[in-house]
Amino acid sequence: MIEQKDIDSVFAQYVKEYQDINGSYVQVYEKPPTALEFLRGSVQPNRPAIIRDGFEHWPARRGWTNEYLRSRMGDTTVTVAVTPNGYADAVTFDPVTQKEYFTMPYEDHMAFNTFMDLMEGKQVSENANYISLQNGSLPVEYSAIENDVDKDINWCSEALGKKPDAVNFWFGDDKSATSLHKDPYENCYAVIRGQKTFILYPPTEYYCMHESVYQNAIYEPNPTTHKLELKPMDGTTPWIPVNPLHPDLAKFPRFRHACPVTVTVNEGEMLYLPALWFHQVMQKGEQGVIAINYWYDMDYSNMLYPTMALYRRLLTGIMENNRELIDNDDGSDLE
Amino acid sequence: MIEQKDIDSVFAQYVKEYQDINGSYVQVYEKPPTALEFLRGSVQPNRPAIIRDGFEHWPARRGWTNEYLRSRMGDTTVTVAVTPNGYADAVTFDPVTQKEYFTMPYEDHMAFNTFMDLMEGKQVSENANYISLQNGSLPVEYSAIENDVDKDINWCSEALGKKPDAVNFWFGDDKSATSLHKDPYENCYAVIRGQKTFILYPPTEYYCMHESVYQNAIYEPNPTTHKLELKPMDGTTPWIPVNPLHPDLAKFPRFRHACPVTVTVNEGEMLYLPALWFHQVMQKGEQGVIAINYWYDMDYSNMLYPTMALYRRLLTGIMENNRELIDNDDGSDLE
Repeated sequence: MIEQKDIDSVFAQYVKEYQDINGSYVQVYEKPPTALEFLRGSVQPNRPAIIRDGFEHWPARRGWTNEYLRSRMGDTTVTVAVTPNGYADAVTFDPVTQKEYFTMPYEDHMAFNTFMDLMEGKQVSENANYISLQNGSLPVEYSAIENDVDKDINWCSEALGKKPDAVNFWFGDDKSATSLHKDPYENCYAVIRGQKTFILYPPTEYYCMHESVYQNAIYEPNPTTHKLELKPMDGTTPWIPVNPLHPDLAKFPRFRHACPVTVTVNEGEMLYLPALWFHQVMQKGEQGVIAINYWYDMDYSNMLYPTMALYRRLLTGIMENNRELIDNDDGSDLE
Repeated sequence: MIEQKDIDSVFAQYVKEYQDINGSYVQVYEKPPTALEFLRGSVQPNRPAIIRDGFEHWPARRGWTNEYLRSRMGDTTVTVAVTPNGYADAVTFDPVTQKEYFTMPYEDHMAFNTFMDLMEGKQVSENANYISLQNGSLPVEYSAIENDVDKDINWCSEALGKKPDAVNFWFGDDKSATSLHKDPYENCYAVIRGQKTFILYPPTEYYCMHESVYQNAIYEPNPTTHKLELKPMDGTTPWIPVNPLHPDLAKFPRFRHACPVTVTVNEGEMLYLPALWFHQVMQKGEQGVIAINYWYDMDYSNMLYPTMALYRRLLTGIMENNRELIDNDDGSDLE
C-alpha cells in the first residue's frame, strides 16, 4: 500500500523542478521568427511566446471597423455563446440542485448586426454574449471576411509541416472569460482589437489543477422569464474547478504549488500558446475584443500526450477513485 | 491508501498508449536532413532515426585502416575499459559476497599499439577491452586523428542551436557490450567500421526497466593472479538490471510490457539516438568496431527531463521505498 502523501510529495517536487528550470519568462519575437527559430525556441521546448509585427499586412489589422464588419456581415446569422456570468464551459454551482456542474453556454443564433448592437450598447443584455465557436468558425460563419486575414501562419506551418486544422473568429467584451482548460493544439492567437490576458500554467502543473469529474449541464432560457437557467444533462466531463483569479486554497490545496505565466497580448500581437498548456483568458476593450486564432494539431508522437493521460488516470482517477477515467483504455478521454 | 496494482495498471496503459501511437518504425534519411527536417521529424518527436550518406567526406571513412591508426597513434597512451564479461557499467552478481553491484570497469592505460595488438589477436586477453571513454575522448586522447572527422554534425548543430558537448572515440570488438541505460544527450552516433546493434526503448518505458539502487563496485586486477576481481566501493547508483537479450520475466515482470526498437547501424551510417532513450548496444566486426559519437546537451526546458525524475522517485523511490531517491530535492539524481 502506498500513502497518498508520498505521491503528493513527489508531484510537488516535480512541479517545482520544472519551475526552477524554466522560470516564468516569456520569449518575445520582435518580428516573426523563421520556422527553424520558432520550432527550436518555442515548439520543441513547449514554451509560450509573443510574436510582434506578425500580421501588419492583414487587411483585418486596420480594416475591421464596426462599420466595415456590419457592411460585410450584416444579416448573416452567427452563433453566440450566452451565459449569465461570462463563463462558457466552466464548473458552475447550481443554487437549485445545490450541486456543481460542468456547464455549457446557451448557443444563441442571431444576425451579426444584433450582436454588434449588443457590443455597442445599443441593445442591453443582462448576459455575457461571446462569439467563441471553435469549429473553424472563420471560413464557415465569417466567410464574408475570411480573406481579410492569412489562411495560415506561414512560419508556423513550415515549422510544424502542416496547415492549421481550424481558424476561429472571436468577438466579445470584458464580461466574457474562459475558464482554465487545455487544448490538444499548437495555438497561434492574434489579437486584432482590444487586449487579452492569458493566465498560463505548464502541463507539469496538472497536479495542481484539481481536475475532477462533473455532471454535464447547459444554460437554457426559461420560456416565461427568458432568464438563463441551468439544466442538468446526461454524461460527465473532467474539468478544472479552480479560478486562478481567486483560488480557494482550502478547497484546492494543490493549487498553491502552481505558478502562472501571465501574458497580456495587445492589439497587433500574437501569442503562441503551446499544446496542452492550461489557460484562463480575460479580455478588455472599449468596443469589444476581436481575435483570430489558428489551431494546429499537436504532435502526438512524443511523450507529452500520453503523459497527460497518465496523470489524469493517476491523480484524478486513482487518487479520487474515478474508475471511468482509469478503465477507459484508449486515451480518448484526454480532452 | 493507494494500491500498488492500481499504479501498475495506469503505467501499463501508458506504456501501451505510447506504443500504439508510435509503433516501432525508425525513420531512415537516405541523405543528411536539413536542420528543420531533422528537428521537426526526429528531435521534436524524440524518435530515433538512421542517417545514410552523412559522412562520406570524412577522411576517417576510408582512411582509418589499422596501419594508419598505428602510424598516427602508435605509442600514445589511451584509456581502455577492461572487464571479464564485456559489460562496463552494469549490474553484476559477485560470487564472493553473493550480492549484486553496480560495477564499473577497470580503467587500464596502455599504448595504442598494445590495444591494436589485442584487437588483431597478436596479444591474447581473457578480458574484454573497450575504448569507450566518454569525456570527449576524441580531442583529448585522439588529437592525432581528430581532424579526420568533422568537429560537429552541421545539420544537427543548426537544428539544436548549439555545438556538441563531447565527441567520443569508440573502438572494441564483439566481446564488449553496453548495458541498458540512458543519457541526457541528443546523440549522433557514426559507425566507421563494423556494425552496431542498438536495442532501444522510449523514455515512457522507464516503468518496465525495474531500475533499482545498487552498491557501487569496480573491477581491479588481483595483484597475484592478475585476474579481475570485483571490489565493493562506497556509494550507490540507480541502474537497470534487465538484459533484454535474455530477460528474467519472473524477476522483472514489468519488462513484459516493454517493446524494443531494434536498429542495426552499418558502416557508413549514423544513428540519431534521442535524449533519455534507454539503449543496450552490441557490436560485430572482424578487426574491431570503430565509431565516433557526438553528444549534444539535451533541452532541459520541456517536460521530458523532470518527468523522468518524477518516474524515478515514484516507481523506484516510493514503490520500492528507496528514500534517498525521493528526498533528494534537486533532481541531480537523474543520471
